[in-house]
Amino acid sequence: MRIAVPREIKSGEKRVALVPDIISKLTKAGLEVVIESGAGVAAQYSDKQFSDAGAQVKSTDVIADADVVLSVQPLNPAQMKALKKGAITISFLSPTGSADSIEAAISAGVTAISLEMVPRISRAQSMDALTSQALCAGYKASLVAAELSPKFFPLLMTAAGTITPAKVVVLGAGVAGLQAIATAKRLGAVVSAYDVRPASADEVKSMGAKFITLELEALEGAGGYAREMTEERANKQRELLTPYISAADVLITTAAVPGRTAPRLVTAAMISHMAPGSVVVDLAAESGGNVEGSVAGEIITTSAGVRIWGAKDVPSQLAFHASMLFSRNVVNLLLLMTKSVDGKPTGVIEPDFSDEIIDSATLTHNGLKREKGK
Amino acid sequence: MRIAVPREIKSGEKRVALVPDIISKLTKAGLEVVIESGAGVAAQYSDKQFSDAGAQVKSTDVIADADVVLSVQPLNPAQMKALKKGAITISFLSPTGSADSIEAAISAGVTAISLEMVPRISRAQSMDALTSQALCAGYKASLVAAELSPKFFPLLMTAAGTITPAKVVVLGAGVAGLQAIATAKRLGAVVSAYDVRPASADEVKSMGAKFITLELEALEGAGGYAREMTEERANKQRELLTPYISAADVLITTAAVPGRTAPRLVTAAMISHMAPGSVVVDLAAESGGNVEGSVAGEIITTSAGVRIWGAKDVPSQLAFHASMLFSRNVVNLLLLMTKSVDGKPTGVIEPDFSDEIIDSATLTHNGLKREKGK
Repeated sequence: MRIAVPREIKSGEKRVALVPDIISKLTKAGLEVVIESGAGVAAQYSDKQFSDAGAQVKSTDVIADADVVLSVQPLNPAQMKALKKGAITISFLSPTGSADSIEAAISAGVTAISLEMVPRISRAQSMDALTSQALCAGYKASLVAAELSPKFFPLLMTAAGTITPAKVVVLGAGVAGLQAIATAKRLGAVVSAYDVRPASADEVKSMGAKFITLELEALEGAGGYAREMTEERANKQRELLTPYISAADVLITTAAVPGRTAPRLVTAAMISHMAPGSVVVDLAAESGGNVEGSVAGEIITTSAGVRIWGAKDVPSQLAFHASMLFSRNVVNLLLLMTKSVDGKPTGVIEPDFSDEIIDSATLTHNGLKREKGK
Repeated sequence: MRIAVPREIKSGEKRVALVPDIISKLTKAGLEVVIESGAGVAAQYSDKQFSDAGAQVKSTDVIADADVVLSVQPLNPAQMKALKKGAITISFLSPTGSADSIEAAISAGVTAISLEMVPRISRAQSMDALTSQALCAGYKASLVAAELSPKFFPLLMTAAGTITPAKVVVLGAGVAGLQAIATAKRLGAVVSAYDVRPASADEVKSMGAKFITLELEALEGAGGYAREMTEERANKQRELLTPYISAADVLITTAAVPGRTAPRLVTAAMISHMAPGSVVVDLAAESGGNVEGSVAGEIITTSAGVRIWGAKDVPSQLAFHASMLFSRNVVNLLLLMTKSVDGKPTGVIEPDFSDEIIDSATLTHNGLKREKGK
């Protein structure tokens, strides 16, 4: 069967769904790999590296005769319709955000597998692209903050006296938040972090950061994600967070609820208490923003001299490694669907819906919208 | 006596020569401090902070009736001529780069003290602004490199496998180079460094970096700076460095000879061996560049996909702390010239040329160009 990787077409997307290093895992499983020419260039992987690794590189369309298409961004409706009936597509594909692509997959009779829907169970960790890409975003968040800050992050002892370390507050201690904490700590900052899930306190503390405890009841939702909360509770949370934010040199917000608008954790009034030159990094800017006034892809300077960096395509800013991790995730998921007979690969890929991971992640099959367990 | 700090007028200069915190050291010494309104704004120090700290903030000219003027950049000839006869100016003031300001200081009868000329002796360390500002530049160099790189700096162990750390090569292990090494190490990179002075090997190793030893004779000049070398030797050095640079994800160059054009350590041919996506940071871009093709203030992408960042006004990118360190340096130097009688400050400043530091650093006095020891 033929696995194809098209060039990503969304503006700002620099990742590629497969990297050369991993091609041999697919060819050893009896699969043929076709890469659209230039697909890896923005992530620093050349056509030559792909062909040296055993892939065919084509400068014409690679989708129409593919059995499986791997991509980072969802195929758009036109691409879905260009697929063979029965073909499989694996990519990010949000049930709420990509409804048009999902409709097109249904009418084209395509099996559409969504990386967002891979369950957060231990066996699926190596296929969890949300996690691997959040890792990239969290690392970048702290680097950007350090770059924008007019202050040193580390404590410095110099002949001209001591420089005290920067104070960084991280809101949201999921994968991105924890990696932001780790990176700010590496750079020597003093880090505090808050999450609505009290269970994250131990993780935060284990990274050497202080956990901010507010006098609020806890919220922990299904699948390890935070639940939404009432407006009254959200107001109380904002009020209690204000003194921490006022005292911070850097605020990094990372709170996202998959498929929903990001919670508004921080208002303009809260930001107005920060000192001039303070930096705010809103990793959730693309999904509505945790911070009032953030704009995805822009740096906004408030009248009080606080700079608010709105995230846009952040994993693409680390395209080489983000693609490497993504391709490992997607290949692990693909190999879960390969069939072997007597321990030998047959080169056939077939989704097995009795497997919880495939069951959860497959959104469309045989011209129908799937529901988990059905 | 009246100490004045004008607004910096050079484009791109965000630092300020005094910060509010340090004003009390001067007022306690019986000195009056006048700050031009807005002088600290770009470095995040407000007029109110200065007045709260005991300085007068004036929106009119502060130079004409000042006894001592403190600035980061040299006063320009017009400013020099506006000073009272016998006034003192302390700032960066390069004998080679600021000849016009020095001429103007002579004809205006001004005592011009150059921070570049503060000797590198142990007693003068707390007054060494070249060092404190190089510290800022070195820190920024590694941050910028990490920001531009499509790769993680640290080793990461993830559910999708391991990411190996980035390889960083630093050329020049002076203050800036050592701080670049320290920052890249903090971020988890594997760092190697080279300097023409073999004495720097121990410092490099003590920061956890590998020292690159080339089969060349050593060069160590006066005052702890590197000496210039012959073209033949420079060619050999470039040839021997090439394999290290080819293998690097990031190259940071920090080699500067004060008052001279920076040595050309790296040619375009050497850069052409680096992988696409590699990053070069040339901290010496403003003084001619260590790297062929670097342009101060710009990011140049080579045809092979290597990005070369040319430094411009780097300490200003860390203006808050760069100003804090600078102001401690300049105040320490100023206090060396205050007179006390019976342990009480007289509020009088008078350069004492029998002091080696003042002797070395003073370029003009009483309408004459000074020479050290005369």
